[in-house]
Amino acid sequence: MGVSPAVGGSPAKEQQAAGVGILLQIMMLVLSFVLGHVLRRHKFYYLPEASASLLIGLIVGGLANISDTETSIRAWFNFHEEFFFLFLLPPIIFQSGFSLSPKPFFSNFGAIVTFSILGTFIASVVTGVLVYIGGRMYLMFGLPFVECLMFGALISATDPVTVLSIFQELGTDVNLYALVFGESVLNDAMAISLYRTMSLVRNHASGQNFLMVVVRFLETFVGSMSAGVGVGFVSALLFKYAGLDVDNLQNLECCLFVLFPYFSYMLAEGVTLSGIVSILFTAIVMKHYTYSNLSENSQRFASSFFHLISSLAETFTFIYMGFDIAMEKHSWSHVGFICFSILFIIVARAVNVFSCAYLVNLFRPVQQKIPSNHQKALWYSGLRGAMAFALALQSVHDLPEGHGQIIFTATTAIIVLTVLLIGGSTGTMLEALQVVGDDRDGHLGEIFEANNGYVAPSYIEAGPSENRFKTKLKEFHKRTSSFSALDKNYLTPFFTSQNEDDDEDDEPMPSSRREGFMANR
Amino acid sequence: MGVSPAVGGSPAKEQQAAGVGILLQIMMLVLSFVLGHVLRRHKFYYLPEASASLLIGLIVGGLANISDTETSIRAWFNFHEEFFFLFLLPPIIFQSGFSLSPKPFFSNFGAIVTFSILGTFIASVVTGVLVYIGGRMYLMFGLPFVECLMFGALISATDPVTVLSIFQELGTDVNLYALVFGESVLNDAMAISLYRTMSLVRNHASGQNFLMVVVRFLETFVGSMSAGVGVGFVSALLFKYAGLDVDNLQNLECCLFVLFPYFSYMLAEGVTLSGIVSILFTAIVMKHYTYSNLSENSQRFASSFFHLISSLAETFTFIYMGFDIAMEKHSWSHVGFICFSILFIIVARAVNVFSCAYLVNLFRPVQQKIPSNHQKALWYSGLRGAMAFALALQSVHDLPEGHGQIIFTATTAIIVLTVLLIGGSTGTMLEALQVVGDDRDGHLGEIFEANNGYVAPSYIEAGPSENRFKTKLKEFHKRTSSFSALDKNYLTPFFTSQNEDDDEDDEPMPSSRREGFMANR
Repeated sequence: MGVSPAVGGSPAKEQQAAGVGILLQIMMLVLSFVLGHVLRRHKFYYLPEASASLLIGLIVGGLANISDTETSIRAWFNFHEEFFFLFLLPPIIFQSGFSLSPKPFFSNFGAIVTFSILGTFIASVVTGVLVYIGGRMYLMFGLPFVECLMFGALISATDPVTVLSIFQELGTDVNLYALVFGESVLNDAMAISLYRTMSLVRNHASGQNFLMVVVRFLETFVGSMSAGVGVGFVSALLFKYAGLDVDNLQNLECCLFVLFPYFSYMLAEGVTLSGIVSILFTAIVMKHYTYSNLSENSQRFASSFFHLISSLAETFTFIYMGFDIAMEKHSWSHVGFICFSILFIIVARAVNVFSCAYLVNLFRPVQQKIPSNHQKALWYSGLRGAMAFALALQSVHDLPEGHGQIIFTATTAIIVLTVLLIGGSTGTMLEALQVVGDDRDGHLGEIFEANNGYVAPSYIEAGPSENRFKTKLKEFHKRTSSFSALDKNYLTPFFTSQNEDDDEDDEPMPSSRREGFMANR
Repeated sequence: MGVSPAVGGSPAKEQQAAGVGILLQIMMLVLSFVLGHVLRRHKFYYLPEASASLLIGLIVGGLANISDTETSIRAWFNFHEEFFFLFLLPPIIFQSGFSLSPKPFFSNFGAIVTFSILGTFIASVVTGVLVYIGGRMYLMFGLPFVECLMFGALISATDPVTVLSIFQELGTDVNLYALVFGESVLNDAMAISLYRTMSLVRNHASGQNFLMVVVRFLETFVGSMSAGVGVGFVSALLFKYAGLDVDNLQNLECCLFVLFPYFSYMLAEGVTLSGIVSILFTAIVMKHYTYSNLSENSQRFASSFFHLISSLAETFTFIYMGFDIAMEKHSWSHVGFICFSILFIIVARAVNVFSCAYLVNLFRPVQQKIPSNHQKALWYSGLRGAMAFALALQSVHDLPEGHGQIIFTATTAIIVLTVLLIGGSTGTMLEALQVVGDDRDGHLGEIFEANNGYVAPSYIEAGPSENRFKTKLKEFHKRTSSFSALDKNYLTPFFTSQNEDDDEDDEPMPSSRREGFMANR
């Protein structure tokens, strides 16, 4: 507490340093929120909130670096991977799932899985091989092949935050949104898995082949998904039967409701599954079933609560990252490595997106193919963020002899560049590719509602006619009818106490759609 | 993330352990909430929520101790004083202040300060001297005099959580509530200050006298109060002029609102003042001024949010403490020390309460004297909790040679006993002392409302008549008129945008009163 100025030994001093550190962080948070608000009010999309937060972190970190700050205060700003994974990431991912409208996500599920598993694998290998060849040709610092693959894996983790916030702000196509969102959430898990495997291969040179990685990833994915869905269903049943939706128990109801997502995340982590995947599915299930079992006040509170917590976590993550980038030691002697890495990841993401899109389009009927402007938007959305940063920080420990330092510096440079450049130009890009919410999108929105939430990815391209529209409707209905029927006839009655969802399925639902799709910003 | 089971080096393992640790903690939290709810629904007041949480922590800790738990998981359950002071304590104190009705608090301010400064000082010295004499007479283990005083200081910090929650549940006298609450919050700061000073005296044997401690405490107190009030006023002005109370900015509004209390706490800690005192006054100011500048939705959200966060922090603190008590090494060889300490702290608290009450009553007019049943209730409410625990844990580091261990063990025994015994019997005690909310209390409540929030502390005792009532009203009015006038004519118009408060001051305000006094449970 440091109650008296002169009194107080080492613990009091430490606590004082912690106080100053947290105070600075809060001030930066407030500054970010205010700055972000001012920029948004003036419709200045070239510096989104995430970029602003990163810049604030960089500037304050730079100032702290120049001035002679105490090390004990500095210690509070070090980016701890554990803190990021255990406390900052869960609310962000939960809110993504909670505010997601599940139908476009599930109708694009095949494509999302292709992009995030096969695509991330391709991107990692392509980046790794290119970096290795670049090193062999003396274009850049030559890393051993395994380390190149590690770098390829960690740099393939794309960040959902910034691009998605702009997508939501501008109101883009639901399918494109679902693709970008789904890919960026699920590819994190794949990137981590690949990175860890490569790290193990490097240390023990065990004979695990690449196919094993994919099989394991699938195992983990299915396990995590089941755990997440299971926890979600348990929460739905608890709130259905516990009778907590009376007036004076609102606090108890909310306490339990906010503990479930975290429970799901930690359960998955505890049994070495993927917490990200698990909490994502818990979020979807809780939104669909548990949420409607809450009292009305608690529903309103829960939405605001998760929105608030995730906003704080998001903003804090970018500030924290910016500050740490400014504070950490970097080895700027390898500028060539950075420049060529940037080139290579652009190439690798192009290979990833366009080859996977080609593959997905092979299996999709002609009206549902992923149009080329969506592919380009997806290619462009490969912003690198906190996940790549956390893994790069880990590589500093994993790879001694300065190699980790080089990877770390290259990663931070890529993050800063992509966040500032891609983040700042996403609005322009979306407009240029004509996927932004204009008149046509308004039209799309109407049909989206009338059409029970489903719309063909290629709707604009295909030149809509009343006839085609009906065909599509039928196709979509066929494809998803089994799950819809299961949901309507068994799951919803079993897990919820109200039967509103039935009506929702038959009627336009402007409010529900807005809630799901727009509530995030 | 530990995505693949066999894959994963040391960081993945560590994270897994953290996941399991947090998972267990969440399960205990859920269990506590559910158990507490079930007990409350059956009106079983002998095991309040805090006691239940402590017991759950003790039991799970005991089981973990017997079984062969991994040390990495255990590490997650160690009670870190820093974590307690920086993350668990602020929301608890803020919620106390935020849900407090300020009028009884300020009308008893003189008494509260007397109890918490002079009283805590008396209690510390009496306990210390008795323990020293006990040691000299070979009744118990003999500690050096300075260490006895350190023990006296740390054991004099009373805990607000359990007793107050029962007070609120049963609806007791507002003045008694204000006394117990105010004393337990402010005496923490005094106890810390005394403990730190003694610790310094022990190390350096510097010639600081006891008067200096009091002067320093007052300095700190005034400084912290000013900082807290200042931050509160800044927040009121921000929300008055920023124009954030429009519909789509609710999230930004809430983000900023929840950052201010934390800012106040860390500001005070950063400049070596008392964060507890500072956040308490920020809470009071924010409730009175800032709160009315929020939009209606944000008001509802902010109340629920702080209530939720503080419930989680409170419950978690007791679980955490119980678990750590079960896990830490104890030196049970000095049972005599424990038994006599318990006797001595009862005596010391009696000296504290009855002498201070005598002093306060000397200066109070006859109708406002603290009645003897209130004094007894105050004596009885001396439950020891997390603050004493955190300081005792520190004493293990501060005092080597096993002395710290003895103090720690005695403190934990006292905490467990007082939480279970006092916590379980507070309801009975309040009924026996006739300060519980029965018919008379209902009457009291009505008059409280009609009487602009003021009621004499000795209202029940004095045998109310219309005449006396009017006299009291006048006296109270005189005593508080200067601040009320200042508030009404200058502060409220300056810091808030609505003028509702004016009306509130002239009319009965049943809803506002319920909000302030009952919202906590």
